[in-house]
Amino acid sequence: MDQAPMVLHGYFRSSAAWRVRIALNLKGVPHTHAFHHLVRNEQSAPDYVALNPQGLVPALEVPGLGVLAQSLAILEWLEETQPGAPLLPADPWGRARVRALALTIACDTHPLQNLRVLRHVKHALGQDQAGVDAWARHWIGLGIAAVETRLAEDATGRFCHGDAPGMADACLVPQLGNARRFATDLSPYPRALAIEAACNALPAFRNALPAAQPDAE
Amino acid sequence: MDQAPMVLHGYFRSSAAWRVRIALNLKGVPHTHAFHHLVRNEQSAPDYVALNPQGLVPALEVPGLGVLAQSLAILEWLEETQPGAPLLPADPWGRARVRALALTIACDTHPLQNLRVLRHVKHALGQDQAGVDAWARHWIGLGIAAVETRLAEDATGRFCHGDAPGMADACLVPQLGNARRFATDLSPYPRALAIEAACNALPAFRNALPAAQPDAE
Repeated sequence: MDQAPMVLHGYFRSSAAWRVRIALNLKGVPHTHAFHHLVRNEQSAPDYVALNPQGLVPALEVPGLGVLAQSLAILEWLEETQPGAPLLPADPWGRARVRALALTIACDTHPLQNLRVLRHVKHALGQDQAGVDAWARHWIGLGIAAVETRLAEDATGRFCHGDAPGMADACLVPQLGNARRFATDLSPYPRALAIEAACNALPAFRNALPAAQPDAE
Repeated sequence: MDQAPMVLHGYFRSSAAWRVRIALNLKGVPHTHAFHHLVRNEQSAPDYVALNPQGLVPALEVPGLGVLAQSLAILEWLEETQPGAPLLPADPWGRARVRALALTIACDTHPLQNLRVLRHVKHALGQDQAGVDAWARHWIGLGIAAVETRLAEDATGRFCHGDAPGMADACLVPQLGNARRFATDLSPYPRALAIEAACNALPAFRNALPAAQPDAE
């Protein structure tokens, strides 16, 4: 067994990298970080693109195996191969619920408000900063509202699914962080906010916060 | 056991519903269809929102259990609970590769060009039809190019991963269908096109094509 630690390629503010930081912490997987400054386009540098051809963070470098891309594929791989706290419940119906919550954020919300898309809204569609921010808030609001509705279900506990944190929480907390960056009104989402508070009381989440990263500005 | 068939709520042209049609066919799961005309906003009708609060297709109604949302959560649930052809390989690293390919489409590509987003680009950002189409082609091109790069890897076979179709193929084929609707130049993506041809030679894929659905226009 190769015992060199995994390397998470990320950026303090990337909410997709943030998800993986949470998962690695929940699992207790030893790892180091390599930071790529997205605003300075370091994710497009040749040596990083050689590692992850899509030129996006996060990517997880696993010694002896290779490089994994896509945050949710990384979370599923961690779940299948690493001991430590489970990211998904045991029953298939519960697993589907958690995945649906995670995908509501990872597919329907975050991709519409990440850096490359906001740049395109600004430069290709000619929006000013107010227009860009309104675009981001629109999609963030729809996404968190959809999650909030489902959080009214009985399966919700102190966390998105029952009383232990997992894959859905690892997506929700970073999305709420993004929501604040765009000054989204979060008062309609008390269930999401309560879960966020429960998460960020845990070291696994607290240590994954953007402000806790060495590359934070 | 409740033996009533599952009901797939979809729309012939929804590429996310198309993914689930492929998966149900590959698994050989008996099912019926309920179609919701997205352009007429039938997905926002109260009876459908009661079923899937997000007001999006697809949703899979499973008698005795409830309703599943989010296409990839549905595919994972089918994989975990239904016999028939596997949608994921057996080894965790291969599973991560297939999921990453699927998510490159499901997170980074399709959400940027689906109907609700194109409507917002048009009405909120004031783009004409040419601007809307250019927006769609931009993101579709980036997404398929990212997949094409990874299809050069040794793990690719006649299909996205080896010589049997699965979750990545179920995402790629509908995305190529969308690409054509927006007149995307697909000539730079010969590997993706060869896999699409191999897929659509199979009844499971052929019967899932939009044109083969009863609600096709």
